[in-house]
Amino acid sequence: MPLMTREEYIDSLRNLKQKVYLFGELIENPVDHPMIRPSLNSVAMTYELAQKNEYEGLMTTTSSLTGKVVNRFCHIHKSNDDLINKVKMQRLCGQNTGACFQRCVGMDAFNAVYSTTFEIDEAHGTDYHKKFKKYMEYVQEKDLVVDGAMTDPKGDRSLAPSKQKDLDLFLRVVERREDGIVVRGAKAHQTGMVNSHEILVMPTIAMGPDDKDFAIAFAVPVDAEGIFSIYGRQSCDTRKLEEGAEIDLGNSTFGGHETLTIFEDVFVPNERIFLNGEVEFSGMLVERFAGYHRQSYGGCKVGVGDVLIGASAVAADYNGANKASHIKDKLIEMIHLNETLYSCGIACSCEGSATKSGNYQIDLLLANVCKQNITRFPYEIARLAEDIAGGLMVTMPSEKDLKDPKIGPYIEKYLKGVASVPTENRLRILRLIENLTLGSAAVGYRTESMHGAGSPQAQRIMIWRQGNLDKKKKLAKAIAKIKE
Amino acid sequence: MPLMTREEYIDSLRNLKQKVYLFGELIENPVDHPMIRPSLNSVAMTYELAQKNEYEGLMTTTSSLTGKVVNRFCHIHKSNDDLINKVKMQRLCGQNTGACFQRCVGMDAFNAVYSTTFEIDEAHGTDYHKKFKKYMEYVQEKDLVVDGAMTDPKGDRSLAPSKQKDLDLFLRVVERREDGIVVRGAKAHQTGMVNSHEILVMPTIAMGPDDKDFAIAFAVPVDAEGIFSIYGRQSCDTRKLEEGAEIDLGNSTFGGHETLTIFEDVFVPNERIFLNGEVEFSGMLVERFAGYHRQSYGGCKVGVGDVLIGASAVAADYNGANKASHIKDKLIEMIHLNETLYSCGIACSCEGSATKSGNYQIDLLLANVCKQNITRFPYEIARLAEDIAGGLMVTMPSEKDLKDPKIGPYIEKYLKGVASVPTENRLRILRLIENLTLGSAAVGYRTESMHGAGSPQAQRIMIWRQGNLDKKKKLAKAIAKIKE
Amino acid sequence: MPLMTREEYIDSLRNLKQKVYLFGELIENPVDHPMIRPSLNSVAMTYELAQKNEYEGLMTTTSSLTGKVVNRFCHIHKSNDDLINKVKMQRLCGQNTGACFQRCVGMDAFNAVYSTTFEIDEAHGTDYHKKFKKYMEYVQEKDLVVDGAMTDPKGDRSLAPSKQKDLDLFLRVVERREDGIVVRGAKAHQTGMVNSHEILVMPTIAMGPDDKDFAIAFAVPVDAEGIFSIYGRQSCDTRKLEEGAEIDLGNSTFGGHETLTIFEDVFVPNERIFLNGEVEFSGMLVERFAGYHRQSYGGCKVGVGDVLIGASAVAADYNGANKASHIKDKLIEMIHLNETLYSCGIACSCEGSATKSGNYQIDLLLANVCKQNITRFPYEIARLAEDIAGGLMVTMPSEKDLKDPKIGPYIEKYLKGVASVPTENRLRILRLIENLTLGSAAVGYRTESMHGAGSPQAQRIMIWRQGNLDKKKKLAKAIAKIKE
Amino acid sequence: MPLMTREEYIDSLRNLKQKVYLFGELIENPVDHPMIRPSLNSVAMTYELAQKNEYEGLMTTTSSLTGKVVNRFCHIHKSNDDLINKVKMQRLCGQNTGACFQRCVGMDAFNAVYSTTFEIDEAHGTDYHKKFKKYMEYVQEKDLVVDGAMTDPKGDRSLAPSKQKDLDLFLRVVERREDGIVVRGAKAHQTGMVNSHEILVMPTIAMGPDDKDFAIAFAVPVDAEGIFSIYGRQSCDTRKLEEGAEIDLGNSTFGGHETLTIFEDVFVPNERIFLNGEVEFSGMLVERFAGYHRQSYGGCKVGVGDVLIGASAVAADYNGANKASHIKDKLIEMIHLNETLYSCGIACSCEGSATKSGNYQIDLLLANVCKQNITRFPYEIARLAEDIAGGLMVTMPSEKDLKDPKIGPYIEKYLKGVASVPTENRLRILRLIENLTLGSAAVGYRTESMHGAGSPQAQRIMIWRQGNLDKKKKLAKAIAKIKE
Repeated sequence: MPLMTREEYIDSLRNLKQKVYLFGELIENPVDHPMIRPSLNSVAMTYELAQKNEYEGLMTTTSSLTGKVVNRFCHIHKSNDDLINKVKMQRLCGQNTGACFQRCVGMDAFNAVYSTTFEIDEAHGTDYHKKFKKYMEYVQEKDLVVDGAMTDPKGDRSLAPSKQKDLDLFLRVVERREDGIVVRGAKAHQTGMVNSHEILVMPTIAMGPDDKDFAIAFAVPVDAEGIFSIYGRQSCDTRKLEEGAEIDLGNSTFGGHETLTIFEDVFVPNERIFLNGEVEFSGMLVERFAGYHRQSYGGCKVGVGDVLIGASAVAADYNGANKASHIKDKLIEMIHLNETLYSCGIACSCEGSATKSGNYQIDLLLANVCKQNITRFPYEIARLAEDIAGGLMVTMPSEKDLKDPKIGPYIEKYLKGVASVPTENRLRILRLIENLTLGSAAVGYRTESMHGAGSPQAQRIMIWRQGNLDKKKKLAKAIAKIKE
Repeated sequence: MPLMTREEYIDSLRNLKQKVYLFGELIENPVDHPMIRPSLNSVAMTYELAQKNEYEGLMTTTSSLTGKVVNRFCHIHKSNDDLINKVKMQRLCGQNTGACFQRCVGMDAFNAVYSTTFEIDEAHGTDYHKKFKKYMEYVQEKDLVVDGAMTDPKGDRSLAPSKQKDLDLFLRVVERREDGIVVRGAKAHQTGMVNSHEILVMPTIAMGPDDKDFAIAFAVPVDAEGIFSIYGRQSCDTRKLEEGAEIDLGNSTFGGHETLTIFEDVFVPNERIFLNGEVEFSGMLVERFAGYHRQSYGGCKVGVGDVLIGASAVAADYNGANKASHIKDKLIEMIHLNETLYSCGIACSCEGSATKSGNYQIDLLLANVCKQNITRFPYEIARLAEDIAGGLMVTMPSEKDLKDPKIGPYIEKYLKGVASVPTENRLRILRLIENLTLGSAAVGYRTESMHGAGSPQAQRIMIWRQGNLDKKKKLAKAIAKIKE
Repeated sequence: MPLMTREEYIDSLRNLKQKVYLFGELIENPVDHPMIRPSLNSVAMTYELAQKNEYEGLMTTTSSLTGKVVNRFCHIHKSNDDLINKVKMQRLCGQNTGACFQRCVGMDAFNAVYSTTFEIDEAHGTDYHKKFKKYMEYVQEKDLVVDGAMTDPKGDRSLAPSKQKDLDLFLRVVERREDGIVVRGAKAHQTGMVNSHEILVMPTIAMGPDDKDFAIAFAVPVDAEGIFSIYGRQSCDTRKLEEGAEIDLGNSTFGGHETLTIFEDVFVPNERIFLNGEVEFSGMLVERFAGYHRQSYGGCKVGVGDVLIGASAVAADYNGANKASHIKDKLIEMIHLNETLYSCGIACSCEGSATKSGNYQIDLLLANVCKQNITRFPYEIARLAEDIAGGLMVTMPSEKDLKDPKIGPYIEKYLKGVASVPTENRLRILRLIENLTLGSAAVGYRTESMHGAGSPQAQRIMIWRQGNLDKKKKLAKAIAKIKE
Repeated sequence: MPLMTREEYIDSLRNLKQKVYLFGELIENPVDHPMIRPSLNSVAMTYELAQKNEYEGLMTTTSSLTGKVVNRFCHIHKSNDDLINKVKMQRLCGQNTGACFQRCVGMDAFNAVYSTTFEIDEAHGTDYHKKFKKYMEYVQEKDLVVDGAMTDPKGDRSLAPSKQKDLDLFLRVVERREDGIVVRGAKAHQTGMVNSHEILVMPTIAMGPDDKDFAIAFAVPVDAEGIFSIYGRQSCDTRKLEEGAEIDLGNSTFGGHETLTIFEDVFVPNERIFLNGEVEFSGMLVERFAGYHRQSYGGCKVGVGDVLIGASAVAADYNGANKASHIKDKLIEMIHLNETLYSCGIACSCEGSATKSGNYQIDLLLANVCKQNITRFPYEIARLAEDIAGGLMVTMPSEKDLKDPKIGPYIEKYLKGVASVPTENRLRILRLIENLTLGSAAVGYRTESMHGAGSPQAQRIMIWRQGNLDKKKKLAKAIAKIKE
């Protein structure tokens, strides 16, 4: 049966020999590294929840490829309900981790590559789709985490791939062999890379005739020869390394991460190549992946938002301000904004449709609208959380002070809010809000809400293209009785 | 077959002897009155579109009560798809009228009364639901327009119904007879009253034990003895009365209206009474009606928004500014906001569920979120439209000047934008934008977006109640490892 | 003494033979025309207030040209205090009219032409400044209203003046004579033209070497041969023509207007020409005029905002909602936004500086920031006013109904709010809010806040130019320790 | 001469024996502690700039008390120009530190205590003002940094000081002696405490008759017996402790800090007591201090905003996106918002007026409007900065990786933007943006913009009180012709 337990998943990672650098050093054992482990715990939650009966049908479903029960993160969506359940699953995971659980990128890549390869084959007589289905059966059978790798470093933004001074700034084929290809380059912002088994590479933008070597999609194990990653710094990351630290982390169990992953002449065998120079399909693949991933944020960020709203309400309970009408009004606003995001996630799923390959894709216009709101509302929710939390969130002493026998009692005394609540609880909830608005989780809740799945302007371009302005002009002219 | 044509509908209205006052006078023939006719044309569009093959299944559907094809405006929703199609139908009608087509209120009242009467009967052993089903069969069979009447004048907002100095400020039973009841009072803001066949009255707020006489729901024909209406003024309403006016109306064909409708001791026979003193169900009925109607705005206002966006784009085409990046960006923003509203309409439908009576109701939280956004985004869309339109929209001469043989040529010459476009077309599109942002249609697109189906604060109270803050607090405490 | 009374001002207009067309007809007596008179009353208020002792020093000041007391609207600013007092005077006039009082455009033109002519003379050895000073002495002595005329129709926005198909779309010299020039063209959106004595024409954009004939500034009487105006339609304009109407006007005394003013080969004598082909100064003149006028809005719109805020508070008093925390919060927000606008008006005045000619100009960056906010906050203030007002504002019956002996009592009864307040008062205050948000005054408070003194994008271009980004980059690099 | 050099200032701190705890330990030498030193450098900048000729008159001025040249931070404002120059000085310091320079709180306390003591003496015949003037002469002569201490821990927000379970949650007099008083309690969020010479304590809220022991104001040296502080944690604080770290700090030179400062039965001699039980003046003192400090933010945060805007522009230069119209538009928006804040700072200064004591206070309404905007716009500026910066800001490797001989070259290669710019420079500017939006400086630029000088609701209450709604209602009624 293809569902791994949480423990099996963790063990499976230990068996990989992935190369990861952090603070200038090669990490021997990423699985147990205190700075990395919280991000692994988040991914592990996607296995843990899938084992629970109450989430059967939500966290798991029946594969349309094999007929077996699979984790929904490995699923090829076969209906609108699948798309809707995807969003609900993501909200659930966000609620239970308060962090980025990283496994969405692979899921979104699966579905984009699935339908695009079908259409490439149709146009070019290639066999990418068959190869990819086989690969998916492998992924489902093993219940793997796959890093979906799209974003190239891109160098000078004003220049196309083939015009960069250093051609490697877009990942590219440097050698073509009978049994496969050799690639060189890098992928930036690789979410969850260190917690993955495989990496599924896609091109990063629509391409033209000059860009053949850059129009490439393939999969390799994360420990393939020539691949290594450099771990990204996050705000407050080293609190996780502080001795005895727990409260100061805000969220001591869960986290997320990104890496810069480098492909130093990596060999890819033919059976794992899913796009190879068919430049005109590069744009379709990017657009579909981005569409799915923009939908995803209508689930995961909403779940994290639930945690932040809850934390803010608790903070108000703890300092006695919870009855004030302005506090209540701010909590209402936070819920309102968060549910607007959720509505967008649901709507683009509900309005999705079948691709030629038979899997379901979201409504492109509405998914872009969803993501555009994601680049705004979490910032306002965070602002309101900081408003409710009060200044103490950023001026309170460290956990070490709280636990110090000499200084601790003064903190207990003077930072007490409502008399019946232990000061420690108050500090814990404020540290969680700090974590989500300024700390490690703010990286995911704020900056990556902005740029993940494409920066705001990318969505605006899509909204322009998908908005059907011509039809709207016709409606207006008809009502204004304009004949041309 | 229960579908009337546009003409049959108009004729059916002529046969009614509804009493309507306008500018202090009783109108003899409302159907052909130039100030009222545009609003009738909007309702007529709901009949016209239902005759078109391309909208079969959208504008029409099969009644769950009779198995016959009915106009969806008369339908009792039997699935989530019904709820979704309702929203799509409303967007379509908004796109084709650029105005309020008025027939939604009745539809939303049908579905709220349908499920609530079922639950009253369950609790009290009454037979309201059976009576109401019979009434609905009549409505469907005749393809009627029914004015859904909820809002009482309410007098002093700080006082309950039974505490008002004048008890009639909430509609109430003034006499109880064997064969029925006699009611007195008024309903304010009655959308489409003059274009309706029947009026379905509901209470306006949740009520307590003292409010028995105010907890009343029933239906009567619009020309029942004792009923009369006073027509509401709208911005720019009398342009419709100007001789030869067409361009200056912006939208010369379609419009909307509201009335203050007075019940001067009106008799209601027993078979048309659907709530009579069961005070504890008053709140449920209000909440469900409001829920449906808050969903509705995620359709109709989006359709009107499409027209306004289209008009703005045409205005930019006509003055040569259409290539400017800031113009494009503003159009993108308008589409983005409009589709966010649509997403909310779709999401609350998609997340709806069956009531005890078997019909479907929307997700209450998301419907309130939908409406809350409706109180904001149309204002911003209108603001952006005014930005793109330019100041000419409010400073340009009248149609009479344009058509004047002496003055007209100067207007033609000096208000020309792009050389190939007749000046008249430019003025037409600007008048349409004026109509939607300042004129008659602004009443519907702005102020009624604010207050229709409940003012903003009403939604906030519902979001507070439905937002499940306790669950969110638990999520936060779990992650912060707070034990209490 | 150069201060006219209100009556003298009105009489002075009667003596002019200005040609104005409205609804296709030449108006014989604009001064007493019911659609025009309210706008005249607003201008008259600038005379009336100047007669009051309490506003000495605010409405009046000592001319730096003649040493006589003049109306501040005719003043050449000689200090920062003058600039600040200008804003305060404008707020006062807005508070007392709830409308556009029109006299600012001339005042802003005076000051821009004053300093620019000085610098042209410096560069070219011309005598424009001396001529203009003489003209200003005449204006001050006679206490005149001068229409400042900048905006050309502009035709196709993507083309320069000299590239338009019809060259007249930018006002231009069509004949050069020994004693003067002959001009042809039009000026659009001419605020207060019909209530003016003189018109002071300026070019509309920065110009290049090909645009010599368009780079022209001059003054002529409004009834100069060849000049005529077509009166612009406003929302709800004809309510002023309704017999016996007063309540329905919202503001029955005051208003504003704009015209399209046409120059049909108008002769300008040499002594009234202030720019004639010195193309490189066209941009300076536009920039300075726009700067002053963008400051102006930080006064006048704030005064109108005060009226709208007050009206909203009264509406809440009248329906008993005034104690609700959300109503209070909305009023606070309205005040906050309005005072932010005022702060911008004050700040750009306080940071102003002397020009080469000695008069004072505002800080250009801050004046543009001021106007940019004006394109946003009045819309939000209006939205909040509509929120507080309630739906009744757009659904209530006409004044004729209220006064009808048969229907009136029903309105009195059913539209009563707080029992002690006459219904008529409630309707009056709602009509005022309607006037300011949808009606005639909305033209000034909303659309002209958007486009007057330049559309939003015009300010953004200026903010970009004036924002000193290079200095900001240097600050950032210094702190980041970047050496280049 | 009373101006210390930067070095003299630092030496003067070494001579104090202030007690500071950090991470549970007493710090021996705060001056050279790597986590504290950056905050000290920011204060030192206020001395350094005061030595420069170019800032004479801005950083320094002539004392109205002694006639000597003093640092403006020690000045009692004697004119509107003083108030305006205060704001300009703060912007300058913000520009040069990109951080909180801490010395404002004392300055604002000086001016509030100065005028309030005058009015207490007038009412009660006390001699607080004379004593305070003497104290000010001492402060000016020594050029001291004084911690202005207002915020008590406050415990349960729903309870008054005298109703708290632990009375010490508001600082209070626990013993009254002939020569002075003994106080106990704490002050939270003490900005710059560790870099101060003296602490000037004020009450935290308006008080009633029961609160006599809490209505207390006084000054003591920071190393007075019984005083000690616990240093507050900030986001990313320990990066300052990382070996060799510089780039990763974003701003390696400057910072800010807050402490929780505890008064463990501290003796205050009579000559340093400035309020002692005159409860009715507690509110005035709080209101005036808050007013000054709300003005302050219109200077300091604007200066920091300049740095963030500059950094964003540099980031766009470095990745080649600087020519894109949407990038330009975002920079314009950032400048627009920042200058709106500045306008509010200037306006409340320009509209200030003399107190009874002769010093100048700001316009209270406009200062509260200023601060209310400060609780909003820096968040939006930060959001736009994150938009321009791109996701790399939160995913890029550490400085240790960059400098590692093996890994570094890969970073240099793959994170290169525009080919001519060293990768290190790109990383430096992104780290600065991180510092300001998520890191240590975000504490000051975001959370403290929210809560410093009072949380948003505190300003709204003041705006309500100062907004003169009655006058606005009168204006509206006059225009609507309502007689009551």
